[in-house]
Amino acid sequence: MTQTQTPCLLRSLSGETLDRPPIWFMRQAGRFLPEYRALRATVPDFMAFCKDSEKAAEVTLQPLRRFPFDAAIVFADILLVPEALGQKVWFEAGEGPRLGELPSNDQLAEQIEASTGRLSYVGETLQRVRGALEPERALIGFAGGPWTVGTYMLEGRSSDRSGPRSLAYSDPERIDGLIDVLVEATARYLAMQAAAGAQALKIFESWAEQLPEPLFDRVVTKPHAKIVKRLRELGVTLPVIGFPRGAGALVDVYAQNAGTDAVALDVQVSAEQGRRIQKTKPIQGALDPLLLRAGGPELERRIDEMLQAWGDGPYIFNLGHGILPDTPIDHVERAVRRVVSSGKGG
Amino acid sequence: MTQTQTPCLLRSLSGETLDRPPIWFMRQAGRFLPEYRALRATVPDFMAFCKDSEKAAEVTLQPLRRFPFDAAIVFADILLVPEALGQKVWFEAGEGPRLGELPSNDQLAEQIEASTGRLSYVGETLQRVRGALEPERALIGFAGGPWTVGTYMLEGRSSDRSGPRSLAYSDPERIDGLIDVLVEATARYLAMQAAAGAQALKIFESWAEQLPEPLFDRVVTKPHAKIVKRLRELGVTLPVIGFPRGAGALVDVYAQNAGTDAVALDVQVSAEQGRRIQKTKPIQGALDPLLLRAGGPELERRIDEMLQAWGDGPYIFNLGHGILPDTPIDHVERAVRRVVSSGKGG
Repeated sequence: MTQTQTPCLLRSLSGETLDRPPIWFMRQAGRFLPEYRALRATVPDFMAFCKDSEKAAEVTLQPLRRFPFDAAIVFADILLVPEALGQKVWFEAGEGPRLGELPSNDQLAEQIEASTGRLSYVGETLQRVRGALEPERALIGFAGGPWTVGTYMLEGRSSDRSGPRSLAYSDPERIDGLIDVLVEATARYLAMQAAAGAQALKIFESWAEQLPEPLFDRVVTKPHAKIVKRLRELGVTLPVIGFPRGAGALVDVYAQNAGTDAVALDVQVSAEQGRRIQKTKPIQGALDPLLLRAGGPELERRIDEMLQAWGDGPYIFNLGHGILPDTPIDHVERAVRRVVSSGKGG
Repeated sequence: MTQTQTPCLLRSLSGETLDRPPIWFMRQAGRFLPEYRALRATVPDFMAFCKDSEKAAEVTLQPLRRFPFDAAIVFADILLVPEALGQKVWFEAGEGPRLGELPSNDQLAEQIEASTGRLSYVGETLQRVRGALEPERALIGFAGGPWTVGTYMLEGRSSDRSGPRSLAYSDPERIDGLIDVLVEATARYLAMQAAAGAQALKIFESWAEQLPEPLFDRVVTKPHAKIVKRLRELGVTLPVIGFPRGAGALVDVYAQNAGTDAVALDVQVSAEQGRRIQKTKPIQGALDPLLLRAGGPELERRIDEMLQAWGDGPYIFNLGHGILPDTPIDHVERAVRRVVSSGKGG
């Protein structure tokens, strides 16, 4: 074989156009796999499960055994950071995350340095996975975006973000101060993941939607640019993927100014917008998880359409949002096979 | 005065760039006004309130007495159409709309012709308002977009639309058939509003978000183009404003293909995207209702920014979503005054 040992994901992220795009799926380690549900059942508390490096490494690797994914993404949660900063976090069964009283920005800032050490279990998970992973498959580390994590911290749970958005207008210093804390804690957390064996990093800004341009710039684009800058100052040269989910037309502005090496796109991207961004950096995305779950000829048509729209530039095949728990495994198999077999060189 | 009697809103909609943009606010007739709440309290049932033409006309006019808005929009609800097609609709206090059993597409189709007559109370409201409105102020009629109305009909309530989106993949004929019914019923309903005195028409596609491009084209853009085409066939020449809320980058594709005379934008538009669309047709939008509620210097800065970004082309000032019930009246006054006084000609 003439394949280089550099994982194809990293080649794409460096701007190469490959015979066929690398492929991995958001939330590929998780609820849609029976082997995940079996292991998860052994540790009822979700936060404890995340902190068990042996089990977290195992579920990170599970999807790689079933499917020829080109990357593993470390099993963790975006709310590990607030906990490490001193805010209580727990999960109510069937209801999602709950967070305790929010410390002041000053109190949180005092915990930044210690927070990275408290998150060392994620580093251990990465080391374990790295030791087991074939060299042609890449390992991705990640963190939540400061705005998204901040909205959970402010609201104490999942919300429509209108509270934090209002606060950004009425008490800008409070929001900007919280985001500054999260920028620094996130940069250090990602640097720790790089040191532990991650080969690419991703910032999940899951709630980048419905923000006017000046506010988006303030709470999403600029903070991401700061995280990337801090990573470089900390000596981390790994490629960073930014994912401003729901940013719509503002993804163009994000691609220009956020400083990430690649941009992940949600299901709403237009073919034209993807190509526009691809001229400046690699893109990732953006299959509808609902379509993956539905399957059928429409799924195959859409995969072909995406390969045709973006396959002639640096492109990583993925979903536009996390895989749904009730997705048939057979649909995932077919989708992955279709992408992998699309390579002209075979 | 050298002012023409043609309402400035209609001049903007025909592509003129005015000294200052016309202004009106989505949901300006409604809950943020004490005089609305007082009248509303006299008819506890919301559907009955909508059908009381005298009261609906009164609340349509209320905001025009307080503020120098350039347009009135008829007080009505997007769910009047499903009711007229034979599906039961009611409102649970504090919980929003509920809809009864959904008739089959064939059963709904049989009701299209009769539905327009059943909606004649909206025509009466328009006639009453038209009789009381100054000639320099325009009167807007509206309907919900077929996808948005269809999701309510399918789910029986407000939802995250993942059910209808899944159904669009797994049972395309059912969704396309429902949308076809709604296209025809909506076109006839809007034609009736035109005959009753509306001077511009708007299609509110409130849930255009998170749709992949081919699905967006299928359930939003093409159905809107069909509505406009049917309106022209029915002899209606009024300008039509399309509002695909949440469509992000796909608004560009919508502007090219939906056939509406103008495009309303939500809070997420970028300055650049607005200018790009403005080269082909007038735009409307897109102040954040949360910022209007918050008020302060940030509100004034943002208004100035929007006037500067889009004031040199055909532009109608508005919010990016409906005004919030707890918006201080003083903030509305200041915002309207700032826009109205921005005209170079005074």
